[in-house]
This record gives sequence, C-alpha cells and structure tokens, in this order.
Amino acid sequence: MIRTPYLLFLGDAPDQLAAKVAQGIADWNPENVVGQFRMPGCQADVGVADMTLQDAYNKGARTLVVGVANRGGMISEAWLAVLAEAMEIGFDLASGLHSLLRDEDVLKATSARSGATLHDVRVPSVAYPIADGKKRSGKRCLAIGTDCSVGKMYTGLAMNAEMEKRGLKSTFRPTGQTGILITGKGVPLDAVVADFMAGAVEWLTPDNDADHWDHIEGQGSLFHVSFSGVTMALIHGGQPDAIILAHEPTRTHMRGLPDYDLPSLEALRDMVLPIARIANPNVLVAGISVNTKALGDDEAATHCKEIEAQMSLPTVDPFRHGAGRLVDALQAI
Amino acid sequence: MIRTPYLLFLGDAPDQLAAKVAQGIADWNPENVVGQFRMPGCQADVGVADMTLQDAYNKGARTLVVGVANRGGMISEAWLAVLAEAMEIGFDLASGLHSLLRDEDVLKATSARSGATLHDVRVPSVAYPIADGKKRSGKRCLAIGTDCSVGKMYTGLAMNAEMEKRGLKSTFRPTGQTGILITGKGVPLDAVVADFMAGAVEWLTPDNDADHWDHIEGQGSLFHVSFSGVTMALIHGGQPDAIILAHEPTRTHMRGLPDYDLPSLEALRDMVLPIARIANPNVLVAGISVNTKALGDDEAATHCKEIEAQMSLPTVDPFRHGAGRLVDALQAI
Repeated sequence: MIRTPYLLFLGDAPDQLAAKVAQGIADWNPENVVGQFRMPGCQADVGVADMTLQDAYNKGARTLVVGVANRGGMISEAWLAVLAEAMEIGFDLASGLHSLLRDEDVLKATSARSGATLHDVRVPSVAYPIADGKKRSGKRCLAIGTDCSVGKMYTGLAMNAEMEKRGLKSTFRPTGQTGILITGKGVPLDAVVADFMAGAVEWLTPDNDADHWDHIEGQGSLFHVSFSGVTMALIHGGQPDAIILAHEPTRTHMRGLPDYDLPSLEALRDMVLPIARIANPNVLVAGISVNTKALGDDEAATHCKEIEAQMSLPTVDPFRHGAGRLVDALQAI
Repeated sequence: MIRTPYLLFLGDAPDQLAAKVAQGIADWNPENVVGQFRMPGCQADVGVADMTLQDAYNKGARTLVVGVANRGGMISEAWLAVLAEAMEIGFDLASGLHSLLRDEDVLKATSARSGATLHDVRVPSVAYPIADGKKRSGKRCLAIGTDCSVGKMYTGLAMNAEMEKRGLKSTFRPTGQTGILITGKGVPLDAVVADFMAGAVEWLTPDNDADHWDHIEGQGSLFHVSFSGVTMALIHGGQPDAIILAHEPTRTHMRGLPDYDLPSLEALRDMVLPIARIANPNVLVAGISVNTKALGDDEAATHCKEIEAQMSLPTVDPFRHGAGRLVDALQAI
C-alpha cells in the first residue's frame, strides 16, 4: 500500500496531456490529494492547490506521486533534486514510469538514508499464481474496448463511484499504472510474466459477497494485435458476469497500427462473448461506454442515441453523462 | 546460440516421462546428440549411447543439456557434482528448468572459474519489441490446440521435417523450453512480460522468402483459461497463413482444470478464425493433428478418418502417420 494523502508532482510538464496521471488521480481520488507541486515552466495544472513540499507535508501529505510523463517514460534529470528533497522531508515516492525510481542512484541513496519507500508501481511486487479457473463468488464487470485508450479505466471508475453513491458494494480493481496510483494498489498487468497474467487477475478479484461488484480495469483490445493477449487474460482471469463495450468514435485506425481498421461494436460483441463464456457461461454484454471527449454536447448525445438504437443496449459517456444507466443494467442482472 | 553437439543429462530420472525433454531432443535432433549420461538409479533411457562426461567430450560434445525434470522443476542436489565436473572438463550447461543454473552457487562459481556458459533457456535473453503488426513476407503455420499438451510442438517439428525432406524452405520456430533445447534457439514465450509477447513472436518469425514456411510452436489453448493470453499473442504476433487444429482424444477435461470441458474441433475452428483474421485476413485452417499415443493402430486410423469426415480437413497423427498430408495442404495454399 502507498501512504496517503498525496502531493502530485507535475514537474516541468510541457503540456496538460503530460500530466494525465496526476489528472486521473485528481479526478478520481480528490480526497487523497493535498495539492500539486509544479516546477518553473510547468504547463500543466490539474486544478488543485499549488504547494511547496514542506507545506504539503505539514498538511499531511505522505507520498509524492510522479504524475507526469515525459517522452519515453524517463525520469528527468531536472526532477531528481526535488524528488530527493521530498524524501529528506519525509515523503515516500511513487511512480508508474517505465524507468524506475530505484534505478536512479541519487534516489536510491536518499531513500536508504531517509528511510523513504520508493514505489515503482510498474513492477509487480507479488509472485502471482497460475490461474486455476475456479468459479469465485461475487460479481465482476469488465470493460472491453474496440481499441486501446478508449476510456475503459474511466468507465470502471465511474461505475464504481456510482455504485458507492447508491450504497452498493463495489470495488475498482486497477490493472494499470494510473489506476494503481489512484487507488494505492492493484496489478500492473502489462508487466506480469505471460504464464501468470490470468492468475494475477484472479488474485486481484478474489471471492467476495454475492452482491458485491468488482469493476476490473480493462487493458488493450481483442482487436489490437500488440496487446490482445493481455485482454484475453483479463477476460479469462476476471471471469466477468457483465461486459461493457468501450468505444471512441473519432479513431480512424487502431492506435499505433495504421494498417488496422477498428472493429464494429457488433464484431467486438460477437468475438468477446464466446471467449468470455468459457470462464463464465452466464456472462452478458450489459451496456456501451462511448468516450465523447472529441464531440460537442449535442453531437455526443445524438451519437450515443444512435448506438443505443443500433445495439439495443444502454449507451452513455459515463464521464459526461454519468454511469447511472450502466449501473442500472448491472443491478438488473 | 547453444554449442552443439549435446550430451543429454538424464540424472536420476525416476521414470521415462521425467526425461521428456531429453527424449524430445533425441527424437528431433539426433544428429546433434552424442549420447546420454545417466546416474545410478536412473529409470529413463532415450535410446542413445551411454557415455562418461570425458568420453562424450572427446567425441565432440560441447553442451551438457539437462534433459530431465523432477517434481517442481528444481535442480537436484544430487546433480550438482556432475554438472560442475562437466564444466571443469569443458562443457557448457543448458537447462529449461524453473529453477536456474545461475542461481546455484557451486555452478556459478565453477562457470566463472572454467569459462563455461550457463544457458537458462527459460529466461528471455532479448529485449523484445512491442508488436507493430506489420505484414511480413514468407508464410507461417501455427498449431492451435483444443487443450494444452496435445502435441502442438511435435506437429510443428514433424511438418518442418517433412518440408525439409521435400527440399522446401522451412524453419521450426520454438516458443517453449524443449523446442529451444532441440533447436538451440527460440523464445521462451511463457516467461516473456505481457506487453512484449506478440512482439517476441514477431521477432521470432521475421520477413522471409515468399515460399518459406515458419512452423511456429503453439502454446496453451484459447480454451485454457490459465494460458489463453499466450495463445492469443501467438496468433496475433505470428499472423499465421495456415492453422493446424491439434487434439488429444482421450482427455476428459482441460488439463489441470477439472471443471472445464474440452471444446469441440468445430468450436475451436469457429473461435480461432475470426481472431486470426485480424492479423491475416487470408488465414485458413489447413488440417488437423491428432495425438493418438493412447490408441492402438486400428483405433488411431479409424479415429482420424472419422474426424476427417466430420471436419472435411486432412487429419493425421503426424508422429504416427507422418506429416505428409498436412504439408500437402500447405503446398496447396
């Protein structure tokens, strides 16, 4: 577990997109965010109070979270002095970057001296088992995308938040770096060794109360040839009762694969159901989540309506319209 | 690359099955096998000459291959003295066991002193790329099983051997420990990190002559919930032109999963084709490989005939009947 609350480190982010991780944490876990720390020239702002390291520590912050990514996922030279100073004050550090905190000599030395913990959440810290496929109690929902990066994490977070608001039993189960930093725990599935992927998902979503829902964060896409194996392990390890199809309507080809067209929602539904029935014969597609960020309000509403008519399934942008109708669909199961 | 030829180390194998890896090498790469080394009490025999370490070295053997597995894939205490002596004589060591040669202090020390190389083929030695999905030249065949351990590796090896016999351009591409030890190279796919699985398969089967066939070793099964993600990565990274369905007719449930029934060959075909078409729209199922080891000669022949009638596809046990008809099917593509 990562100690909370957090101070969000935005560094010298060149634009808002570079601070995507910090934004995710500020959006979904605001009660655990004390403020943001920005270096000179920082072009991002996630809408929380600017604070010095010492002020944030005095206000209770206990982990400085690297909420910024520069090109290549490296730890920038310019950040090191700040990160080291934070540890001297008493912070732990957490990061989901490709390059690891523990591989920086100055951070390792400071951590050893100060007793601060370095959380590299991209590195699995558990020896996951091989999946045994046993039916687990409780219910599970998984978002499956037509492509990568179409809003699967936000869908799960929004459905979880809506269930909590309704007083229902619900947990968001992160499988990626941002999700882990938002909740403080989870499985960095894309970094797990192949043989243990499905077992890691089983480990992440154990037996639970019969009326409890796990919202498992999706990864990749069955139609994305680079990462489809990860998606497969999520379906068979997660044994979902309900699937939400996730879609981004302005994509012109699969992300990073210019020669690959996006599948239709019908094609995705027809592929995922037989696969998911292997682990859970009662699985059904419960709804559709559309990421309408690139559309205006009217266009977004019209688009969802059209898909709803076409697919005969409740269709919303859970971030824009709320996840109420998707949660209604789960409650009807 | 692992230096050849090999001396096969059978250790104190309690039965023939424990020497499965050595048997695979003796069956499929006999020209690179000088002999076998058996310790007192060894109950296995892979049908090659017994030899002392020194005699085998004098006859040209350069790598002692651990061709035996005991319970849990551990390196037995009893083996260490022999393995160390082999390195003093001039052998390299190779092993596909879960526990690693390099983690044994005595082997590590002896290797450092003698200059011998320790090959732990279960550990990836390459930084594989993320798959880019680009269409590659040359042709590829992949065996897809109704279950794990139904003869996918033997199918690929038999088809490759038959193609070589016919003077066709052909390469067997191992993705598991035994296959790597047989050929001296390959990708230990089940030990690759999730994000890089499909990229590792692309790396393994690069551009080639238009009339060259890669026979990619299959892993897992789309219907085996513990390992289906690995199978998925093989399909999307391998972008096969031809698929062989592999089946073992006496299995009563999925291997290690008593609650999971085996799929029919029709169900497997109907699931794999839409998945494989994402990476290669022209893919087809070319034939069926039945592992008839548990059947008598007549029964095996009848069984294959029945499946052939049912599926309208050439159906053989390539180890028992030869892979000629499967290769005919590839040549007709």
